[in-house]
Amino acid sequence: MNKPVEFYFDFSSPYGYLASLKSHEIERESGREVVYRPYLMGAVFKTTGRRPLADHPLVWDYARRDIERCARRIGTPFSLPEPFPVVTASACRAFYWTEEKEGHEAARDLAHRLYAAYFVEGRDISSREVVIAVAAGETHDADVVAGALEDEAIRQRLRDITAQSAQRGIFGSPFFLVDGEPFWGHDRIADVIEWSRRGGW
Amino acid sequence: MNKPVEFYFDFSSPYGYLASLKSHEIERESGREVVYRPYLMGAVFKTTGRRPLADHPLVWDYARRDIERCARRIGTPFSLPEPFPVVTASACRAFYWTEEKEGHEAARDLAHRLYAAYFVEGRDISSREVVIAVAAGETHDADVVAGALEDEAIRQRLRDITAQSAQRGIFGSPFFLVDGEPFWGHDRIADVIEWSRRGGW
Repeated sequence: MNKPVEFYFDFSSPYGYLASLKSHEIERESGREVVYRPYLMGAVFKTTGRRPLADHPLVWDYARRDIERCARRIGTPFSLPEPFPVVTASACRAFYWTEEKEGHEAARDLAHRLYAAYFVEGRDISSREVVIAVAAGETHDADVVAGALEDEAIRQRLRDITAQSAQRGIFGSPFFLVDGEPFWGHDRIADVIEWSRRGGW
Repeated sequence: MNKPVEFYFDFSSPYGYLASLKSHEIERESGREVVYRPYLMGAVFKTTGRRPLADHPLVWDYARRDIERCARRIGTPFSLPEPFPVVTASACRAFYWTEEKEGHEAARDLAHRLYAAYFVEGRDISSREVVIAVAAGETHDADVVAGALEDEAIRQRLRDITAQSAQRGIFGSPFFLVDGEPFWGHDRIADVIEWSRRGGW
């Protein structure tokens, strides 16, 4: 049985959003499961000395155009939200809580709803209330979700994942690992699939 | 008649080298000429506050692996030279002198020879002597080429191209313009071709 493709991303990353729309295609083409690993990219910026895309005016003018163009090309709705970027600790915690309680499929579905809330509907997912509303949906009690966001074990899980990502050389979003081989960027998805099938080149 | 695709690059850029190997494919698929515009990316770093890839240890570990993997995937020889990166003013001047004297095809051929000298043969193309040897080849007098590198009009041409590139929002290598639309990265070549054919989307 082939190991899963690990998909690291930040919920505030537009390219991470675009990559999330391809996860089923990656699974179909590679024959491997895609495991979602949301993390806090800001923590990694501190260790690399890099800065967010939006901090470089010239680069950001380009990136914004590129992101909108990439979204149009694949026919997906996209609108750059305000504020941007944001810290997505609550969104990550809701994801890991859902994964623990209901399994990876349910957590992945939540990840897609959170991304759509931010990049399609323009809702501010740095807000606890927005995350609780999206995560509770029609099936959970909002108070239960609110409690989960304060759960110390879940908070520690996010800290661990984020610390691990730095140790494993992960610094961007999206960032994929295939049998330990790193691929950065949604423009490397064809390579992720090819590497998954061939085991390297 | 469709306008050419403008291809900006730095002679010290590995991704620029990989992109240069695709210029005939871009022309064949897009039906447009590709015009080479080598420039000095270091000058743009000053205005954007960005730093070269090799300045971020974590990012550079990844990028180095990615570059070698991309080269293997397309089956092209590649070896990261030492020193790296270098300033390529002489290489750019030799290019613009050749373009002026012998036309774009000859200059493009020289660009490919300079890239191969650096990224395949490991010769230091920041050295005037190396540039003169590569540019003179079997057909030019080395003294004539050496004189050309000191030609004030050629030096000014490189300054103008580099200043223009900043004004036009160009900050990376490779960087393509199709009817003014910017594309950054050798991983955007499929988009460059598609945009050239459809005039946008």
